[in-house]
Amino acid sequence: MALEYKQIPYRTVWLEYPEIEPTMLSIGAKPSGVKPDGEPWYTIPVIVDEINPGPDGKPVPITDSWVIAEYLDDKFPDRPLFPKGSKGLQRLLHESFIKVALYETAQLLLPRFYENFNEASQPYFRATREGYFRKTFAEMCPKGSTEWDETWKCLEKGLNELAVSLDKNGPLMDNPYAMGKIFSYADITIASALYTYSTTYPTEWEKMCKWNGGRWVA
Amino acid sequence: MALEYKQIPYRTVWLEYPEIEPTMLSIGAKPSGVKPDGEPWYTIPVIVDEINPGPDGKPVPITDSWVIAEYLDDKFPDRPLFPKGSKGLQRLLHESFIKVALYETAQLLLPRFYENFNEASQPYFRATREGYFRKTFAEMCPKGSTEWDETWKCLEKGLNELAVSLDKNGPLMDNPYAMGKIFSYADITIASALYTYSTTYPTEWEKMCKWNGGRWVA
Repeated sequence: MALEYKQIPYRTVWLEYPEIEPTMLSIGAKPSGVKPDGEPWYTIPVIVDEINPGPDGKPVPITDSWVIAEYLDDKFPDRPLFPKGSKGLQRLLHESFIKVALYETAQLLLPRFYENFNEASQPYFRATREGYFRKTFAEMCPKGSTEWDETWKCLEKGLNELAVSLDKNGPLMDNPYAMGKIFSYADITIASALYTYSTTYPTEWEKMCKWNGGRWVA
Repeated sequence: MALEYKQIPYRTVWLEYPEIEPTMLSIGAKPSGVKPDGEPWYTIPVIVDEINPGPDGKPVPITDSWVIAEYLDDKFPDRPLFPKGSKGLQRLLHESFIKVALYETAQLLLPRFYENFNEASQPYFRATREGYFRKTFAEMCPKGSTEWDETWKCLEKGLNELAVSLDKNGPLMDNPYAMGKIFSYADITIASALYTYSTTYPTEWEKMCKWNGGRWVA
């Protein structure tokens, strides 16, 4: 989405989960973190910039959505993702938003992601995510449970609190973005996180589209 | 602080707590909220603008720090408190900051505020605040209690999380403000909230000045 917005030509390569680590190693991408067992953790998205080669003359791989956005603003300054002075505040929105819309609802989302993945990704995804939560997907927030209801209410409440802040930009119709009339990285965070609901929970997503005056419709 | 920053001349009138409501009524200021008993709630700060009279030709009273800042940017556009597009994100910082540094630590602060107030304000302040928490000041976070330790740790953790976001602006030395190199309303929220610690907890404030690389030093 950042590449689309900045009108930078690109080619997408889709990977199945088990392909991520070997592919990252083969292109020389850095890990973005550390796994619970202490090993380096390779994640997507990654971009490989073939326009601005690194000091060794080779295309540069960049990992982690936020770092990619910073890199793109640095190398392609037109249509900035981080308007002047907004980076720290955008990061606060980014952290707050993924906490509310992804981390706190992880047990709603993960079992549905699993169902939507190709078979090549399913065993890896199940083993790592069930291991992390020490629960099977079937045990995570089963539909109709108290936990299910509470998690949806928690999501609605969390998004409402963020909307109350963003509403200070002025009427939503004229100020659809996190920075009012100005598109920025924060809108990519919001759209990416909410897109997962439209694919995993189409019925609930229709309701979410009506929350906060329609603010969350991508 | 907003008036200082915008270089607008002003005269300060200090009020004791019991004087607030009658004074607000006498100048025609609006309440900023509703008391627990449903009555209108009059609060300070209030500004009275004698430069731009209202439609009836009288000076206009404006209540609530945030609304005052919006009003000042509207009437005195130089040195904006809300740089273009930043209002919603600044509000998110404002809400997050007062939650961490004032609401969640209220029981640390209120008994000390009480001690520092003039006698004219003390009975009103004690009755309203002890009533709200259903606790006497002596029962709120007594020094050395587990609650005391946990509240300070909670403050340090909360400020650290906010610092991690704001650090994305770049090195603190060159980016001392919430918007990096740009002063804004968010810095007034931060400075006002933290100023209360320097007056109520001078010893602890010295430690706070070292948290997060000195970010919180006013």
